[in-house]
Amino acid sequence: MSVLVWIIYDITENKLRSKVSKECKKAGLIRVQKSVFLGKLEWNRFDELGEKCRDIIDKDTDSLYIFPFCQEDFRQIKVLGQGFDKKLVNDEILAKFF
Amino acid sequence: MSVLVWIIYDITENKLRSKVSKECKKAGLIRVQKSVFLGKLEWNRFDELGEKCRDIIDKDTDSLYIFPFCQEDFRQIKVLGQGFDKKLVNDEILAKFF
Repeated sequence: MSVLVWIIYDITENKLRSKVSKECKKAGLIRVQKSVFLGKLEWNRFDELGEKCRDIIDKDTDSLYIFPFCQEDFRQIKVLGQGFDKKLVNDEILAKFF
Repeated sequence: MSVLVWIIYDITENKLRSKVSKECKKAGLIRVQKSVFLGKLEWNRFDELGEKCRDIIDKDTDSLYIFPFCQEDFRQIKVLGQGFDKKLVNDEILAKFF
């Protein structure tokens, strides 16, 4: 069973931030903003990615959210302003998910 | 019908950021991080808040996400590190939602 996922983080140190973004890419997620990824994961990969991120971030300074969505909720998400960075996201990518 | 909601934003100008946080509070949402709110809304208030935020933010520089969740997805959300700012969120608040 797969799940639609958004990951949003606020990570102070460049090195750790870059490590998290690499893990997101490795999991097949797509960057839609500087610190925001989006994609589809199997549920077991969802937990796995959570554990990896937990190990990477500095828990005293950083925050990271992993949001899972069923199709129905996913369609109701509101992305305002530059939520999708036009330099990162094109219509082809959006068509995959919306 | 009500829906569980997370709002996360990245707003450059202090004045606009403060306006959005006021709208979130007015809608009954609870601040859990500097730029993150959480709560329960009726569906019509969900759309309404979206419109208000859209009117406030600078669409060329700011980003704002409104994520709706059914109970089932909500329970699977992963909040890592300082995702809940301890200065803002206590056990009583968390017990309301989790």
